[in-house]
Amino acid sequence: MAPHFKRVSIIGFGLIGSSIAHALKKHGCADEIVCVDASQAVCSRVAEIGITHACTTDLAKGVAGADLVVLCVPVGAMDSVVAGIAPHLAQGCIVTDVGSVKNLVAEIFRAHLPAHVHAIPAHPIAGTEHSGPDAGFAELFEGRWFVVTPPEGADAGAVQKLVDLWAAFGSNVEVMDAGYHDRTLAVTSHLPHLIAYTIVDTATQLEKDMQSEVIKFSASGFRDFTRIAASDPVMWRDIFLNNRDAVLDILQRFSEDLTAMQKAIRKGDGAMLQETFTRTRAIRRAIIDAKQAN
Amino acid sequence: MAPHFKRVSIIGFGLIGSSIAHALKKHGCADEIVCVDASQAVCSRVAEIGITHACTTDLAKGVAGADLVVLCVPVGAMDSVVAGIAPHLAQGCIVTDVGSVKNLVAEIFRAHLPAHVHAIPAHPIAGTEHSGPDAGFAELFEGRWFVVTPPEGADAGAVQKLVDLWAAFGSNVEVMDAGYHDRTLAVTSHLPHLIAYTIVDTATQLEKDMQSEVIKFSASGFRDFTRIAASDPVMWRDIFLNNRDAVLDILQRFSEDLTAMQKAIRKGDGAMLQETFTRTRAIRRAIIDAKQAN
Repeated sequence: MAPHFKRVSIIGFGLIGSSIAHALKKHGCADEIVCVDASQAVCSRVAEIGITHACTTDLAKGVAGADLVVLCVPVGAMDSVVAGIAPHLAQGCIVTDVGSVKNLVAEIFRAHLPAHVHAIPAHPIAGTEHSGPDAGFAELFEGRWFVVTPPEGADAGAVQKLVDLWAAFGSNVEVMDAGYHDRTLAVTSHLPHLIAYTIVDTATQLEKDMQSEVIKFSASGFRDFTRIAASDPVMWRDIFLNNRDAVLDILQRFSEDLTAMQKAIRKGDGAMLQETFTRTRAIRRAIIDAKQAN
Repeated sequence: MAPHFKRVSIIGFGLIGSSIAHALKKHGCADEIVCVDASQAVCSRVAEIGITHACTTDLAKGVAGADLVVLCVPVGAMDSVVAGIAPHLAQGCIVTDVGSVKNLVAEIFRAHLPAHVHAIPAHPIAGTEHSGPDAGFAELFEGRWFVVTPPEGADAGAVQKLVDLWAAFGSNVEVMDAGYHDRTLAVTSHLPHLIAYTIVDTATQLEKDMQSEVIKFSASGFRDFTRIAASDPVMWRDIFLNNRDAVLDILQRFSEDLTAMQKAIRKGDGAMLQETFTRTRAIRRAIIDAKQAN
């Protein structure tokens, strides 16, 4: 059963914020949807799209009377935005977010939010390489994971209502500890993005002729990295700055493994290379078996 | 106009070899197709598939009377196979290959092949993560690059016939110097594969619980790397062993860039991260503009 909200405020109207608006509308989960965005240009564009009932750059007005507030701002903007809305939140309002790091958001919620609201950090693991209010679509969350990281003592009814909302959007729900979320995503998402950004950046520093060849022959492997290296720069800057320890830990392991590969190539150690390349095939098969690829 | 051959010998009947057989048949470019493979099991399977006119494990028999021989063996097997066929090649036969490194193949051809054949190394840049005689299909080369690296003094007519064949298969043809090919592919293909193999291998070394999470949440970035890390292990071992200098050079640049990223994260240098992540978006756009992705 899809839950229902009277007024949902979506703060930050990029890919995820606009997709939530589309999904709320599609599934009839909200009487009113309010867009709150720091950019007047974004608000004007959202008014044109016509997906929300109101658009404002004013945090206080934006969250007034809302029974659900969804923070879709970059993680680096979270502290000031949460501090800004805190005095204006209605009794019993559910405050959640969609940020890619959860320890930090949990801390920010603890520091700023009053006891009369339900603070429930969450992370829908969905996205594309596109950004902005025009990038959103209702089906973004279908078949994807919604990870919710309720703090100790969170209201079970409020957590359930949030879980039901994303289940209505078509997501698979997973309840997790915030710290475990951050360590897991460092491996599955943050390190892959860092490496993709780096290899694409290495290519941008090649001489011009070679850059043209890289683009021309990109389908031979390079292309696979460029999609995720086209993701939103500010969002990713904030992720790396705010999940530093977990990212540096897995990056260290990766660097050691890469050095071992480099040494094997330099010394001509074919057995080591073949053994490694054989082992890695099993993971692809497991991902296909888990229906996360085909 | 598609060229025509009387007898085409395909040596090594994996993904590429079997795809060439399918494409030859589809476009009516050969009276006879002969499969030569060191493995009796592969020969038996190819006979069952029924795509060729003869299957043999015998190199001498396999190339007898052929006017086109296409070597589709791993680069590491190239030397002994070329030495093995050299005494049995017919006058005017075109000998080509599909290997991912070209300097080495050019050397091997020079060392072993008689003057009465046309030795023309080449590389169709096409593939999937699947291997074996059942993986092939006629359309594999459509819209992909066919890079031909004719040695100095190569017969223009023979080169043209080979170019016309791959053009008939639907490929875009590029003529290139062998050394330039190897440096280019080190960037566009070999480094991306090495990095993909390494990150997937790093994941295989995590504790069991975290491995399950990696598979479960792989769509958040990790998955993009697993496809190419499922490529043929022997083929890739041989590529790294035989394009060592070019691979180590670009790997060195990548490692330096990765260390700079690591330092930026450790020091909290958000400006550097954002600047880099903004720069890398341009390459994705250029690849889309070049119609190599969408």
